[in-house]
Amino acid sequence: MPARMTYVLHYAPDNASLIVRLALDHAGLPFETRLVDRAARAQTSDGYRALNPNGLIPTLETPQGALFETGAILLWLADTHGGLGPAPDHPHRGNWLKWLFFTANTLHPALRMMFYPEKYTGEDRRDQARLRRLLQGQITTNLRTLDAAAADWHFPAPTGLDFYIAGCLRWCAVYPADTDRRWFDLSAYRTLHQMCLRIETLPACATLQCAEGLGDTPFTAPRAPTPPQGSAT
Amino acid sequence: MPARMTYVLHYAPDNASLIVRLALDHAGLPFETRLVDRAARAQTSDGYRALNPNGLIPTLETPQGALFETGAILLWLADTHGGLGPAPDHPHRGNWLKWLFFTANTLHPALRMMFYPEKYTGEDRRDQARLRRLLQGQITTNLRTLDAAAADWHFPAPTGLDFYIAGCLRWCAVYPADTDRRWFDLSAYRTLHQMCLRIETLPACATLQCAEGLGDTPFTAPRAPTPPQGSAT
Repeated sequence: MPARMTYVLHYAPDNASLIVRLALDHAGLPFETRLVDRAARAQTSDGYRALNPNGLIPTLETPQGALFETGAILLWLADTHGGLGPAPDHPHRGNWLKWLFFTANTLHPALRMMFYPEKYTGEDRRDQARLRRLLQGQITTNLRTLDAAAADWHFPAPTGLDFYIAGCLRWCAVYPADTDRRWFDLSAYRTLHQMCLRIETLPACATLQCAEGLGDTPFTAPRAPTPPQGSAT
Repeated sequence: MPARMTYVLHYAPDNASLIVRLALDHAGLPFETRLVDRAARAQTSDGYRALNPNGLIPTLETPQGALFETGAILLWLADTHGGLGPAPDHPHRGNWLKWLFFTANTLHPALRMMFYPEKYTGEDRRDQARLRRLLQGQITTNLRTLDAAAADWHFPAPTGLDFYIAGCLRWCAVYPADTDRRWFDLSAYRTLHQMCLRIETLPACATLQCAEGLGDTPFTAPRAPTPPQGSAT
């Protein structure tokens, strides 16, 4: 494949695509965006499912076909272009991979369940609230674990993993809109807080803020998005 | 790091460590095993948590430290030694990664919820049964998606991903012990069934069967394990 090509990122504002957008922009990779119109449930259309049979966002079109799963895209971009994580022969590669997978298979799924509890409880609001409380406890434990681990990371920051964690932290603070948010306080996670502050100094973050309407402090003091196009949910 | 060293696999019979054991044996990598005594909840001990703060199995001790998260270990072994998946510059690497992450962050977590529903519902048995029914539907969808995708994989089999999927399929058929199992029928997934048949012809599979007491057909017609040491739950 050519070392440089124009990728196509299928995104919706404030969806996991924001993590891939940060990575692409930070690595200086050319890409176009295609808005997935969530208000019209375009992610479930036949056309979108032909790219991503799971009907989830993001999808990244590449010379290797349509890639999906945020962690897979971050890893593939890192290995294909460099600058987004330790190379396969880096002495800290294993450490990076284990926390990338942890973020992808534990933290991120717990947040998905927070956003769509009805998929696990049915429609009873009390059952949904109970599931959310249990998840809040699990996510708090996960974030404490990540915060302790991140203090010991020895690869040049930020990597795609930093972007992934920052996205998850943002969502803890913003979604779902109608719940008590006192369970989450970014300042309780010192290293992760620093990670978010550092990301907010990047040009890629300014670009993201404009493109998706995420405000000036999208990670350290996020508020509900006001996207110029499309909708987050 | 040296190209060959003796790894240490912390395992319990029929836990996700079986996937890593298959990968290590299939790739001809020297390793020792350490039984994690689940009956004594050794996975929650301070000593084990010093290796893996999440208290989950497996953990693999390597020159890069203790690695965990099954997907991360598989990927790291594949990239470090070859023979377990397409290399980072392989034209089908992206395709392999997206399904590796999908297995790790969607299929495997759904199974974990099936095994430990009380973490998401509390102690009410009816709530647990409802969650399991919802998960059975989700897992069925996930397996159909994987089955369709796997028919189009263009890398030499088996890879670490095959082992990962086979482990998940085994658990669908065996756990939890006290539930109606009519929701799952491996033969409904033609390509995944072939994948399991192929794995059962490997010397690494025979070794696994003996070590963990998984029987002659641990993937295509699994039964509850009878491990020579330790316990699965």
